[in-house]
Amino acid sequence: MRIEVICTGDEVLTGKIVNTNFSYITQKLEDFGLSVAQETTVGDDRDSLLAAFMLAGERADAVIVNGGLGPTVDDLSQEIAAKAAGVELVLNKEWLVTMEAFFTKRSRVMPPNNIKQAMLPAGAEVLDNPVGTACGFAVTIGRARFYFTPGVPRELRRMIEDQIVPRLLAKAGKQTTVFLKRFHSYGIGESHADTLLAGVEALAPDGSVKLGFRAHYPQLETKLTVRGTDMDDIRAKLAPVEAEVRKRYGNFILAEDDRTLEGVVLDELAKCTGTLAIVESFTSGQIAGRLMHLPGAEKRVRRGVVARDLEEICNAVRLVQVPDAITKEAAEAVARAALDETGATHALAVLIDLDEGADRIEFAGTVCLAIATADSVASRRSSIVGGRDWVRLGAVEMGLDCLRRYLQGLSVTERIDFEKA
Amino acid sequence: MRIEVICTGDEVLTGKIVNTNFSYITQKLEDFGLSVAQETTVGDDRDSLLAAFMLAGERADAVIVNGGLGPTVDDLSQEIAAKAAGVELVLNKEWLVTMEAFFTKRSRVMPPNNIKQAMLPAGAEVLDNPVGTACGFAVTIGRARFYFTPGVPRELRRMIEDQIVPRLLAKAGKQTTVFLKRFHSYGIGESHADTLLAGVEALAPDGSVKLGFRAHYPQLETKLTVRGTDMDDIRAKLAPVEAEVRKRYGNFILAEDDRTLEGVVLDELAKCTGTLAIVESFTSGQIAGRLMHLPGAEKRVRRGVVARDLEEICNAVRLVQVPDAITKEAAEAVARAALDETGATHALAVLIDLDEGADRIEFAGTVCLAIATADSVASRRSSIVGGRDWVRLGAVEMGLDCLRRYLQGLSVTERIDFEKA
Repeated sequence: MRIEVICTGDEVLTGKIVNTNFSYITQKLEDFGLSVAQETTVGDDRDSLLAAFMLAGERADAVIVNGGLGPTVDDLSQEIAAKAAGVELVLNKEWLVTMEAFFTKRSRVMPPNNIKQAMLPAGAEVLDNPVGTACGFAVTIGRARFYFTPGVPRELRRMIEDQIVPRLLAKAGKQTTVFLKRFHSYGIGESHADTLLAGVEALAPDGSVKLGFRAHYPQLETKLTVRGTDMDDIRAKLAPVEAEVRKRYGNFILAEDDRTLEGVVLDELAKCTGTLAIVESFTSGQIAGRLMHLPGAEKRVRRGVVARDLEEICNAVRLVQVPDAITKEAAEAVARAALDETGATHALAVLIDLDEGADRIEFAGTVCLAIATADSVASRRSSIVGGRDWVRLGAVEMGLDCLRRYLQGLSVTERIDFEKA
Repeated sequence: MRIEVICTGDEVLTGKIVNTNFSYITQKLEDFGLSVAQETTVGDDRDSLLAAFMLAGERADAVIVNGGLGPTVDDLSQEIAAKAAGVELVLNKEWLVTMEAFFTKRSRVMPPNNIKQAMLPAGAEVLDNPVGTACGFAVTIGRARFYFTPGVPRELRRMIEDQIVPRLLAKAGKQTTVFLKRFHSYGIGESHADTLLAGVEALAPDGSVKLGFRAHYPQLETKLTVRGTDMDDIRAKLAPVEAEVRKRYGNFILAEDDRTLEGVVLDELAKCTGTLAIVESFTSGQIAGRLMHLPGAEKRVRRGVVARDLEEICNAVRLVQVPDAITKEAAEAVARAALDETGATHALAVLIDLDEGADRIEFAGTVCLAIATADSVASRRSSIVGGRDWVRLGAVEMGLDCLRRYLQGLSVTERIDFEKA
């Protein structure tokens, strides 16, 4: 089955916005074993839209069109869809009622130009949009089934997942139950992960589990796409593969599915009714910045302190004996002092000794970090190379992940792929 | 002149990477008064590439192709370009020499598979790549001139600016000297800016200056694209428009061209040999995180402190008299205490009183901020609405921009478009 995507809108065509809707659509389809063969971007222009619809209608079996369903004059998708399908635009009274209810619920009166959003090509199948006023719909143009979706990312996502993926899977004649299992890790590079997990797919019968990766430094996402007759079947197929991935990755799995590293850290702190103090240097507040604005963080993170100068760091946490250099021992002393100074149950100190001179690919930073509690301290020394930004991003993640490991009773010193030997 | 862009590569087509190369290309062309009519993305697949090249060759006058010039087997652009142009692939000896020199300079021997990068369609015009081994080139396919560019963003950018824009401008018969003037502001929404600057283009003769905007909340970028015979001509045309934009925006211009808000703040601090202390709450370290990792910041920013709890904030800056509530006066007291505690010459305190309950579009935060020096203090109270993330992003920018205004001797209390009346 050939699937194409058409993205519409001057904002995307002129680069005013980066086209993240397309990468979302194609990734989501990949997660369900469906591949996009081609993507086309055109502006809010009748001729361009019509030409793009007609061409894709000749080439493809299914086409997802994104954008152009809004109430304003430059939103042309319904009009051109009708023209390409050779039918009239007609008022869909059900959608009009849905829209009016949408406004009433928000104590507003529907502006008259929203009526345009209920004008659909005659015979179109409605694709529900529970979170907005743009009505999704499907029509046939040429030999392809076209699925029209809204440009607002939140509305698009809901429609793709609930309405379009099931229709595409049915059209492709695939077993319609598909499940995506995700693992998040820090410290294993993509090619290492690929080697490490070699053969795990074979633990499930007849290729029903597919392995994939998505690297967004410093984290790596490992995806298992499972296809089956129903969720029981999927669970049975997934179980041995999932167990093997957990075994091979070991302590490197920092979260699964929709959970995040910072969420896991806050949850672990909540479990032990702990509170945290953070001391940073070159990470410049970005460790605190990942945690402290989250709902619930106000109960868990007492204080963050940032300074670039070791003496100033010591002043901030009332450490009288200023260490001579940035070492593991210095980080331990700073973390202990932060504990005393703030009254938190846990303190994380991440100190960084940076190379001198201009930014360059060999530019390195030595990260010395420590986590202290009333009766114990753990620490780690690690050198990260790759330029100022790379060092900073890596150190933020290493600080948070070591804290996660400490809170979960795991080693904080396991070697990672991103450090210099 | 109809311009199209073709982006190639499985990584882009499957959404593993977001297509920022396309938004870069189309924006850069817009800056020079050139518009892209359509974009197509295809994978590393011979049939798809050939079909895309042939179609664009029928429709367009100029086509920019991005990606597929690497040394590996899935890099197919040269091969398919030759096929579409109906010519052979031949070794370009000059490029081979260039590549060998590239490796020698890095004390490495060129791997044999790099020879593939010097195989170009017969008769192709070389587009120089001073920063990589992928050779750009131009050929004619159908009625269009095709420009092939590398997928590595740094190499692409250099080639677009130095090699391709001048060729496109010449092809379009436009005056070839174009200059882009940019202003960065905070606090003026795009539609307000549009009204505020109405008519400024008319101050230059015969449409030689074009006004445009790019909003990336909370900042707005205002662009003036100027076309002329040479730089003297451009400076003469730009001068009255530039002066008028400065007059109408007034204190809202925070930086121009490649400068940034954080860079301006650090420069102003350097000018008065000042040092800074920062106290934050719900912005969670993200104000410090914008400044403290920058080169030179180690001399200018002494300390950052973050806490969500007002009492904890006061502990951190040794303020004995804890205020009852988050007010302008509380922010002033905290900023003064931070000055005493750290010995900095300037202190910025950004306190935020957040709405209760779940995140929602009406969720608001009241920002109380103060900037203190030994002999003066300035403060502001402002309510920002739009959900947790919006409030946080807005408060980070407001804190930095008020600091910039204070350091430049400007009012810190001018009303902005993003605050609730």
